[in-house]
Amino acid sequence: MTPQTFVPEPAICRLPWYLACVTRMRARGVEYISSTAISKEVNLDASQIAKDLSYLNIKGKTRIGYEASQLEEGLTDFLGFRYTHNAVMMGVGSLGAALMSDSGLERYGLNIVAGFDINPALTGTVIEGRPVYHLDSLKEKMKSLNAEIAIIAVPVEAAASVAALCAEAGAKALWNFTPFHITAIPGVTIQNTSIYAHLAVMYNRMNCQEKP
Amino acid sequence: MTPQTFVPEPAICRLPWYLACVTRMRARGVEYISSTAISKEVNLDASQIAKDLSYLNIKGKTRIGYEASQLEEGLTDFLGFRYTHNAVMMGVGSLGAALMSDSGLERYGLNIVAGFDINPALTGTVIEGRPVYHLDSLKEKMKSLNAEIAIIAVPVEAAASVAALCAEAGAKALWNFTPFHITAIPGVTIQNTSIYAHLAVMYNRMNCQEKP
Repeated sequence: MTPQTFVPEPAICRLPWYLACVTRMRARGVEYISSTAISKEVNLDASQIAKDLSYLNIKGKTRIGYEASQLEEGLTDFLGFRYTHNAVMMGVGSLGAALMSDSGLERYGLNIVAGFDINPALTGTVIEGRPVYHLDSLKEKMKSLNAEIAIIAVPVEAAASVAALCAEAGAKALWNFTPFHITAIPGVTIQNTSIYAHLAVMYNRMNCQEKP
Repeated sequence: MTPQTFVPEPAICRLPWYLACVTRMRARGVEYISSTAISKEVNLDASQIAKDLSYLNIKGKTRIGYEASQLEEGLTDFLGFRYTHNAVMMGVGSLGAALMSDSGLERYGLNIVAGFDINPALTGTVIEGRPVYHLDSLKEKMKSLNAEIAIIAVPVEAAASVAALCAEAGAKALWNFTPFHITAIPGVTIQNTSIYAHLAVMYNRMNCQEKP
């Protein structure tokens, strides 16, 4: 993948909405798509959409919009969904094994090549065709598997030490699903996706009297 | 659950970090915990932590901190993890079935009582002890199952119509895992957790030359 410019997280998180919208419009036979047309479908300001799309290297035509297939490809490329990124799953307990079973991740460019655990009942097994190794072999396997990303789904008490091990083993990025706050590691991208924290946000909103 | 005040999302998302930290400290026998002590473990400013904790209805003692067990209970309560919230899973394909297999959700107060799908190969089956019904029976089942939350893990094309159906069936909250942007529905809390968007953010950060 070619080097990219730094794009603010809220903008990146909106781009998949536009991609989903463009795919639906293309399926309906639409050939040119403007930010105004996207705006009507996703219910966001057209100027915001135009600004977000300006991060992509695609030129639209004034008053006509973007060529639909070009916009779909451009978004898919830009989001990194077209490339395959090899990843290892750290911890194949409940959530880890569940994520290994989600074929959606592969559609979005993430190829989980193996799992790692310390539970003897799990090491040596195979989940959805992918082997589960003992944590001790991480360093050696990361290289031979050509994996850049480590997904962390271990118990929260183990998150800090496992994150450090993955960095040592050469991981370029850690995708952290635990509620533990992994602090910065030089040269390593850290992405926190605490689905349980989102649950807490949802509970709070459900029980709020004063809505924002 | 008692009505709560509206707490900003970033603050709520940090609270589980403190909870994990407090649980670890209690396991080590610590009896009083100050925001300074938490600060050392999670690598955040102590004044930020004190401010976040001020949303809870717990009084700490100056220079001593919070009583550890009271803080752990207070955080668990405040985050809604102690209460059981019944939920239905809309779409039991790859991600939906995976989430139904994640026992972690139950630990954080989410009880998935049933799944819904339109695929005849899936309706009538049982996933981790929970029945999978046809979408047509949603309205009738939501009531008898006493479910307030609908988790949306259907294909992106179906997200809009399924969200509308859930709202009609009486869902108080929608937890949306699709890349579709569900727009506001009066009286319904919408929580978007697009794990695939987080993947895109991680890819971008990995390929960035200029780090922020």
